[in-house]
Amino acid sequence: MQNYDNNSCSLEKAQQIIFHTLRQLPGEVVVLHEARQRIVVCGVNAVTPRPAFDESTRDGYVIPHPAGASTDGTVHRYAIVDEIPAGRPSLKILASGTACRIMTGGCVPKGAVRVVPFEECVEQNGSVVIANHALLALETFIKKTGSEIARGELLVPAGEVLQADHLALLASCGMHSVAVAARPVVGYVCTGSELTAPAEELGIGQKVSSNSFLLSGLLASVGARPVNMGLIKDSEQELLDLFARVGADQPDVLLTTGGMGPGKYDLVEKTFVAAGGRVLFNALAVRPGQSVLFGLLGRTLLFGLPGPPHAVRTLLHELVGPALLAIQGKKDPWPKMIAAHVLHRVQMKPHRVLRLKDAVLVLQDGRCSVRFAERLEVPNCLILLEAGRSTYREGELVQVHLPHELSYSYFWQCGQK
Amino acid sequence: MQNYDNNSCSLEKAQQIIFHTLRQLPGEVVVLHEARQRIVVCGVNAVTPRPAFDESTRDGYVIPHPAGASTDGTVHRYAIVDEIPAGRPSLKILASGTACRIMTGGCVPKGAVRVVPFEECVEQNGSVVIANHALLALETFIKKTGSEIARGELLVPAGEVLQADHLALLASCGMHSVAVAARPVVGYVCTGSELTAPAEELGIGQKVSSNSFLLSGLLASVGARPVNMGLIKDSEQELLDLFARVGADQPDVLLTTGGMGPGKYDLVEKTFVAAGGRVLFNALAVRPGQSVLFGLLGRTLLFGLPGPPHAVRTLLHELVGPALLAIQGKKDPWPKMIAAHVLHRVQMKPHRVLRLKDAVLVLQDGRCSVRFAERLEVPNCLILLEAGRSTYREGELVQVHLPHELSYSYFWQCGQK
Repeated sequence: MQNYDNNSCSLEKAQQIIFHTLRQLPGEVVVLHEARQRIVVCGVNAVTPRPAFDESTRDGYVIPHPAGASTDGTVHRYAIVDEIPAGRPSLKILASGTACRIMTGGCVPKGAVRVVPFEECVEQNGSVVIANHALLALETFIKKTGSEIARGELLVPAGEVLQADHLALLASCGMHSVAVAARPVVGYVCTGSELTAPAEELGIGQKVSSNSFLLSGLLASVGARPVNMGLIKDSEQELLDLFARVGADQPDVLLTTGGMGPGKYDLVEKTFVAAGGRVLFNALAVRPGQSVLFGLLGRTLLFGLPGPPHAVRTLLHELVGPALLAIQGKKDPWPKMIAAHVLHRVQMKPHRVLRLKDAVLVLQDGRCSVRFAERLEVPNCLILLEAGRSTYREGELVQVHLPHELSYSYFWQCGQK
Repeated sequence: MQNYDNNSCSLEKAQQIIFHTLRQLPGEVVVLHEARQRIVVCGVNAVTPRPAFDESTRDGYVIPHPAGASTDGTVHRYAIVDEIPAGRPSLKILASGTACRIMTGGCVPKGAVRVVPFEECVEQNGSVVIANHALLALETFIKKTGSEIARGELLVPAGEVLQADHLALLASCGMHSVAVAARPVVGYVCTGSELTAPAEELGIGQKVSSNSFLLSGLLASVGARPVNMGLIKDSEQELLDLFARVGADQPDVLLTTGGMGPGKYDLVEKTFVAAGGRVLFNALAVRPGQSVLFGLLGRTLLFGLPGPPHAVRTLLHELVGPALLAIQGKKDPWPKMIAAHVLHRVQMKPHRVLRLKDAVLVLQDGRCSVRFAERLEVPNCLILLEAGRSTYREGELVQVHLPHELSYSYFWQCGQK
């Protein structure tokens, strides 16, 4: 049995080691239509102001200062000289005593001071007649250049995950493309002589490599480029061949599952070291997930995960996903911690290490609660049960780690900004 | 100005009309590796039990009933006849007085009653010696066939969005493929003579069609097949041509933005009707988003959205996204409603209709709160401000709609199950 107290790493320590080992990927420029869910490498500022021109916010008549208009003391009369629909500029300067019809979104000509909505005007014989009071209204129905966003304003800070809303914002401020982190190339492999690919027929004693779905799902959700390196038997030679391929191809990250226990056929660490890999930690003071290997082979980060799916899921959530986000420069890549009320009393054997329990967050009536996930239920968070504790009262606040997929990154604000 | 009281539809009424108009798409069978984020059309049951064979949970010796073993009263001795690693079945029946070495995950042979872990045994001259007390332990270290999941058990109910965890589960229970709803084909177009595509140079008075990013982002997030039908000028002929193409191609859904006001160039509804479209509602008692058209052209659902991006986002969230999920058979497709504490006092003019305010959900110390989104901040929910209300106290519970992208569907449990 492993001794947690001597050699195993705390979760925080493991995260620190990973963070200090990984290197952030370089940026690449992509067109906006391909930038959703990518992470910006440096702050993005507005190239053009918004709006880019003085813009009418109503269908109406755009007029100059009333001084030059003919008037009988109660109404003013302007000669209509043009019509300005959205998208077609009037290049004219609006001369004294003249007006243009203008549509919402239309470009306000030089010399104009306000737009008077159609419903407040009467058009007669090529002129528009406007009552005095309409010329005194506070609202001019002109949105001035840059009044929404100034040229040069910071639109998206570095390390942000680009959402559709950001892309619309960037496009509206003159950008066609954006610099984002390159997508990490991640090789993954499931080890175990009992494993077969899903489409093959199962022999007695064989199993489908279901972990490959957890790995490929995570990789898709963090924007990695997955490279399925297949299934590997519990064979020193096959593992050495794998590490030789990895040494040659140098993916950013390699993920393995299985072969991490103390058993005769648990060969991942041994062959990794034999292939020249450097072990940075090989045990975690966390259940599930205590058998995990983190190391470097050339420039490739290795995460050697155990075989049981719930341990794989926990480690993907706590270590691998965040590392892949950090490689892309995401700010705050680690799981977000919140406190939530546990919905049921927890009674268990006290444990010597931190335990992470698959759980479901429940929002109701202004309260944020959490409960253990049921059998076959997909969890959406993890409850942290402290080492040494054996009971939690119903309703007590417990610590919870929220998942950190890219899609969720805009979803939470935890604590004060 | 539109009169909300007479012709406009409540949000609930609009959702009902949409729900009763749409038709659920047929199913299609896809391999598991392509099924992430797809929606299952009927409940999926386990084809094989899990585990599929009696499985050792330890590295050790698998033994039959001790009756046939040689014994000196304190230990039993078994002749070792085979070694069973994971993945290779021992076809032997375990005869009385014999044992096999077996590895974790190994297939337990017929006749075996328990696995004794290596650390409790001594191997000598081709035999294994086991103390009596080890033969009396409660735990047999054999996981029986079907003890995790029985053959035929329901794994995923109809209408569920498939997550990576589901795919791993299905694969581990004998499935290679799954029946999911077809992906809806959704044409989208931005209208407005002032619009240009992002890559083109802007003339004076022109704007980039930034709404296209909101549309394509939503479509990607709900698994639709987007068909960009380009930009359309404020021209009756261009709109009639668009509706003729739609009538010929019959996509499942058509989305338009712009051209929805009461103005001279707001031509979408007029041309839709002229092209044979049937209007099902054309105003909503909600701000933003009051100018919205929902109708049918042949078998194609039309959502005519207004131009302003915050109205587009709100309507995508409240109506379009849920409709696209409902078309795929998702259960509970509409935005989830929760109550949350508003973090700041709200003071505003009372309004005659429901208002939806872009907001950010904040989870802290077991409390679920909400605040208005800041300028340029991407919102993650909407606060519902009731018609007629002008103030909410700080900390008061307000109704909140949570987004409903596929990626979030496992993220929330709101209220009791």
